[in-house]
Amino acid sequence: MSKMESAGESIHCKTGQNSIVQPLLTDLYQVTMAYAYWKTGKIDGHAVFDLYFRKNPFNGEFTVFAGLEECLKFLEKFRYSESDIEYLQQVLPKSVEKGFYDYLRTLTADQINLYSIKEGTVVFPRVPLIRIEGPLVMAQLLETTLLNLVNYASLMATNAARYRLAAGKLKLYEFGLRRAQGPDGGLSASKYSYIGGFDGTSNVLAGKLFNIPVKGTHAHAYITSFNSIDELKATLLAPKDGGAPCDFLQSSISWREKIASIFNILLSEVSDGEFAAFVSFAMAFPNGFMALVDTYDVKRSGLLNFCAVALALHDFGYQALGIRLDSGDLAYLSRVARSYFEKISSRYSIPYFSDLNIMASNDINEETIISLNEQGHCIDSFGIGTHLVTCQKQPALGCVYKLVELDGEPRIKLSHDMAKVTIPGKKNVFRLYGNAFSLIDLLQRSDEAPPVENEKVLCRHPFEESKRAYVIPSKVEDLLLLQWNKGRIVRPMPNLQDIKENVNNSLKILRPDIKRSLNPTPYKVSVSDSLYQFLHKLWLENAPIGELS
Amino acid sequence: MSKMESAGESIHCKTGQNSIVQPLLTDLYQVTMAYAYWKTGKIDGHAVFDLYFRKNPFNGEFTVFAGLEECLKFLEKFRYSESDIEYLQQVLPKSVEKGFYDYLRTLTADQINLYSIKEGTVVFPRVPLIRIEGPLVMAQLLETTLLNLVNYASLMATNAARYRLAAGKLKLYEFGLRRAQGPDGGLSASKYSYIGGFDGTSNVLAGKLFNIPVKGTHAHAYITSFNSIDELKATLLAPKDGGAPCDFLQSSISWREKIASIFNILLSEVSDGEFAAFVSFAMAFPNGFMALVDTYDVKRSGLLNFCAVALALHDFGYQALGIRLDSGDLAYLSRVARSYFEKISSRYSIPYFSDLNIMASNDINEETIISLNEQGHCIDSFGIGTHLVTCQKQPALGCVYKLVELDGEPRIKLSHDMAKVTIPGKKNVFRLYGNAFSLIDLLQRSDEAPPVENEKVLCRHPFEESKRAYVIPSKVEDLLLLQWNKGRIVRPMPNLQDIKENVNNSLKILRPDIKRSLNPTPYKVSVSDSLYQFLHKLWLENAPIGELS
Repeated sequence: MSKMESAGESIHCKTGQNSIVQPLLTDLYQVTMAYAYWKTGKIDGHAVFDLYFRKNPFNGEFTVFAGLEECLKFLEKFRYSESDIEYLQQVLPKSVEKGFYDYLRTLTADQINLYSIKEGTVVFPRVPLIRIEGPLVMAQLLETTLLNLVNYASLMATNAARYRLAAGKLKLYEFGLRRAQGPDGGLSASKYSYIGGFDGTSNVLAGKLFNIPVKGTHAHAYITSFNSIDELKATLLAPKDGGAPCDFLQSSISWREKIASIFNILLSEVSDGEFAAFVSFAMAFPNGFMALVDTYDVKRSGLLNFCAVALALHDFGYQALGIRLDSGDLAYLSRVARSYFEKISSRYSIPYFSDLNIMASNDINEETIISLNEQGHCIDSFGIGTHLVTCQKQPALGCVYKLVELDGEPRIKLSHDMAKVTIPGKKNVFRLYGNAFSLIDLLQRSDEAPPVENEKVLCRHPFEESKRAYVIPSKVEDLLLLQWNKGRIVRPMPNLQDIKENVNNSLKILRPDIKRSLNPTPYKVSVSDSLYQFLHKLWLENAPIGELS
Repeated sequence: MSKMESAGESIHCKTGQNSIVQPLLTDLYQVTMAYAYWKTGKIDGHAVFDLYFRKNPFNGEFTVFAGLEECLKFLEKFRYSESDIEYLQQVLPKSVEKGFYDYLRTLTADQINLYSIKEGTVVFPRVPLIRIEGPLVMAQLLETTLLNLVNYASLMATNAARYRLAAGKLKLYEFGLRRAQGPDGGLSASKYSYIGGFDGTSNVLAGKLFNIPVKGTHAHAYITSFNSIDELKATLLAPKDGGAPCDFLQSSISWREKIASIFNILLSEVSDGEFAAFVSFAMAFPNGFMALVDTYDVKRSGLLNFCAVALALHDFGYQALGIRLDSGDLAYLSRVARSYFEKISSRYSIPYFSDLNIMASNDINEETIISLNEQGHCIDSFGIGTHLVTCQKQPALGCVYKLVELDGEPRIKLSHDMAKVTIPGKKNVFRLYGNAFSLIDLLQRSDEAPPVENEKVLCRHPFEESKRAYVIPSKVEDLLLLQWNKGRIVRPMPNLQDIKENVNNSLKILRPDIKRSLNPTPYKVSVSDSLYQFLHKLWLENAPIGELS
């Protein structure tokens, strides 16, 4: 293996993960806390932490949970290297005892249990996505990295799912690498937008690493690199069915002359550089000709040049794929393009021509798609960049990681803001289904008997005492599954395709009004009566009684 | 070297860069264009590309250029691996000729020249940050990766510089890893916020890789993990000046009793768990005691517990560092905290106590800092997460990469939107200085003589013909410097500290009204008269004459 090859391969070579995901990818306070725990003899307290978020992103009422596989890989590889220890020795005060570093050297995630919801499941505020159980220090040391791995992955998958809901059956491609928050941000965007419902990406490395379909044609630079027809040196193309190569340029020129009059365009208005670019690109990809038609003027140059070259391809036995629009009024231009295609289709009896693909790709976001749908358009696919990959509408998901139990004793973090109060204790989560849709999520204390199908169960709002409902579920799903136990991943790891299908299925069992873009209905997350009593008793015990003065 | 060590180290081991920055980290269309160029015999056309942005981020009027070092490392390592080639063979149509893959195998950046502005320099719209010259295909293949490496780095450095301007001399720490867009997003945030003016980060790996100061104390979980004073087993602490260990807990308890009455607090209101947590943390870090005081009630519990423990530390010869506030009204609570510290300082004649550090860290953004400054506060340092690292206000910088010349012929990309018209041809950029500040940037055609100090030069608005000014610069700076030539980095690479200083110096020579947060004045970017004429002649030659119908 050459030196360069090993560089290219190292991301997934030895570690099976991005090499920067490692124990030091954390906040320093995790390590200082670890030392304080160690000093005070609390390292082996049995802790339970919940990882959850408090508010759905994008003014929506659902979130797609993602990032689990990366979390499990992180646990698998968790170990401080000697150079990590050396670095920590430099950074921490000299007074830190040597024994602590020896202790860090021994640390692995082998004594941790990780329960989680299946990756790609639709989830809601306050529901633990991941529950970590194990020795206090080790459980605490996982916090920052787990949050980092879940937050953006889930945000991105959710964003993609929202675009998918807006776009219906249209094709969606992620084109955001250049605007992503760093190289890995770009890779993660490709991966998690695919999970969330996209059909592919322009990112070649993502295609290679994750086996995602990759797409792409050419940029404006390709078009502007041609000035005239004379620049085309080789002009022969072999017909698809074999046979002797013929002059493809001449055929394209003839077609251009022929159809210019159909669309009332003077050839003097049409860019020859663009034409030359299209001819050369079609000759390079006769089976995959897709043209960017807005470099000069869509109506008076781009579409005409494209149709001429596509007709020449047709004569040679090939089918063009279509066009891409990257500027202007996309609804209007897509209708114009479709009308060109239909005119040619009927005049020359070429049925597929009316169905040529129209891709749009200029600064598209969820609202643009919804607005285009309202205006009426003829777009078949969208290429989406900045808004998708940076989650421009809300660039962070606020997952938190809270201690809820230690050595069997519940822990509660109080706050003046009710939404920030943690629900204490080790909990299980059940999703209760009606006939067509899921009805409600129910959090219970871990020692309660689970709800039973077709039996009445009382679900309470966690904070508002008068909000209660009886539910008779036709199906009960235990959401938190053991994923990591005794140092091993204990369930078969789903591949990307499985996770993508889980997203799709999980969204299907969600009521449409919860998924809609404008003023969606909140999905209900409830607690059992026992958990309600437990939570409020602890709250009163721990909240200080104020004093007005 | 152990297996784990190599995993931990691989990010910077063989490649000297993040291993995912490689030729396949690009859009597929770069490769399809490369093939079409190859097929049409255009691979060696001599191209000039400009990398620039069109609009400053964050409603501001300046941007800090960053990411150059990563770009140069990318050029240094540019080479397709065998497995890259294999993957491309799978992805591209079967019709792609074998010779193309042989060609890709030979590609390096050795024939590329890269000119750029110094990393960490303040830059403005339309000014080329990087100019790439070289064979068309190779220059084109660099586009996506260079944009990815410059966009987020510059956005982040700019964001950090804005926080620095808002915060004045207060300390700023980046705490955003958990909310960053992926692991590498978090690392880049730490690095570029340091460059932009931050004093450190919580991210340990960033500290290790980039030699950035790391900071951190403890989380709420540490506090809630303690329920009572009984949990403290070891309570002896050695005084700083040596001597026999004494009971630190008893000393803290006595202080707490003594000072509770000063602040009119009943001991029954004060959390014993929080107190135990502080005592244990102070014993672990007697020289670095910093306490999170808002887990229960800042005024009636956190501050009292902190002061008691800090006074005990004082008795043992140590100085506490201060507190962190992570919720509530930060301006008010910081003033309350300072009043506690001052009261104790004067009552017990401990001068440093009144200056204890007050750090604030709850959802801080640029506007919060400005608003806190207006309200009056006693905060010494800010820990900033989500808003900083995701650049929430504007999560992407729109750098573009445009072909401006091919084989000596200028290229222009037209647009209905004037801001999107490229300025054609190979250009030089000069910054013209007055006595205290920089006056204007001037773009010239590459064959023009540079402006001369103390001589009059005509600067024109690129698009508005009546906007012109004569400038007599007291100093002229040639901004675009050759950085990469004949396959090598040709200038000494500045370290992070140098770049950070460049940001600081570069901002100093910018007029205050350009840097202000509200309605800043735009900095002027002009063109020479020759470039103006050249641009407008080309524009008219290439723009189609519309037809109203």
